[in-house]
Amino acid sequence: MSRLIVVLCVALCASPGSWAGAQDAKEAKPKQRTLGILLYPGFELLDVYGPAEVFGSLGRQIKIVMVAKKAEPVRSTQGPKTVVDYSFADCPHLDLLLVPGGFGTFQVLSDEETLGWLRERAEGKDGDGAAEITMSVCSGSAILAKAGLLDGRRATSNKQYFELAVEQSDQVEWVKQARWVDAGNRVTSSGVSAGIDMALAVVARLYGEETAQRIADGIEHTWHRDADNDPFARFAE
Amino acid sequence: MSRLIVVLCVALCASPGSWAGAQDAKEAKPKQRTLGILLYPGFELLDVYGPAEVFGSLGRQIKIVMVAKKAEPVRSTQGPKTVVDYSFADCPHLDLLLVPGGFGTFQVLSDEETLGWLRERAEGKDGDGAAEITMSVCSGSAILAKAGLLDGRRATSNKQYFELAVEQSDQVEWVKQARWVDAGNRVTSSGVSAGIDMALAVVARLYGEETAQRIADGIEHTWHRDADNDPFARFAE
Repeated sequence: MSRLIVVLCVALCASPGSWAGAQDAKEAKPKQRTLGILLYPGFELLDVYGPAEVFGSLGRQIKIVMVAKKAEPVRSTQGPKTVVDYSFADCPHLDLLLVPGGFGTFQVLSDEETLGWLRERAEGKDGDGAAEITMSVCSGSAILAKAGLLDGRRATSNKQYFELAVEQSDQVEWVKQARWVDAGNRVTSSGVSAGIDMALAVVARLYGEETAQRIADGIEHTWHRDADNDPFARFAE
Repeated sequence: MSRLIVVLCVALCASPGSWAGAQDAKEAKPKQRTLGILLYPGFELLDVYGPAEVFGSLGRQIKIVMVAKKAEPVRSTQGPKTVVDYSFADCPHLDLLLVPGGFGTFQVLSDEETLGWLRERAEGKDGDGAAEITMSVCSGSAILAKAGLLDGRRATSNKQYFELAVEQSDQVEWVKQARWVDAGNRVTSSGVSAGIDMALAVVARLYGEETAQRIADGIEHTWHRDADNDPFARFAE
């Protein structure tokens, strides 16, 4: 036991990430990115925490912050509440931005304050401060589409309520059969658990395939690597 | 769009669960169970929120409560903090109990207050009030083993730190090759994402295979149904 404790404590102290992230301690550290996750009442738990697990496994290479209109805890569709780190007003620069889905999507679609904040963070203000990549999980792509942030791009959404996304913009090339769609600075995923595979793909792009595979192994997740292979496309309306 | 909104609002009002849970509205409702999830500093995000997504998709059939030593927000290994609903002292009866893993496991292994609370909730006090099923994800099984709650039973744990669990009790039949192990009123899973498959298996036992499959489809998760098929067993020490 003592040997194990020593090994684990070294790993933990070197890189306070997770089971997977701890093994990155030996690697050279690129700049730390900040991932901001938008929370709103009625967000879907796994839309947020699947990608948060994957990105959080990068250890010190990433800082995850939860952002909402107000810096108060936000209740998920399933009940559990998450602490908010920053309100829109005091949120720092975000390198990566993630918009989850969930039943709360319907309220956000008519919430100009949130849509405006997303535009500002995804595209920058006066051409400055744009996020490197803006991502969505599940019906989060309906929100991005409503904000005009997917116009002229390919994108996907969750399958059982695909129409909701499509109705937000006819300027988007909606893809029914896709686990996720990588359109450069916008990456959208299918429903709920697909966010884990999308996050691994984004990690692979930013930090390399080996790091992404190590994270997948660490969290004992069989990484679905083919973005075009969508076992749930049959549920699309 | 208006048709879609009506359909979705009906689904939402009938069963405030999730994309999947909403479809259970027509079914007869069994009693509501309370699932308590133990939180401690340094818990692993997906260990908690994978199962929370699955159980939360049951809608009104389940109530999820977060429990910790004190009713204060708890920080995960990856950073994000979760609101705690109940302290040990004021926690209501729990029908289901889930213990996550994470680097914080090491502190909990020597925390008699937490181990004692787990014993009381898993086994009952003077034979009364025992949880129907006590579950763990990842190194959560090391905690259950340390509390003596797996003695005489089969159990598994995460693979990259398997020895940690084994060292907690030699009265447990540790199974290296298992996605999860169902030992009746104790169900233990492998690392991190395995908790999703374990939760679906427990839902199948309590609410039927059809409900579990509907939830898996709703969250677009390819349900790994074979408890003995463990793609990550090769990582076990």
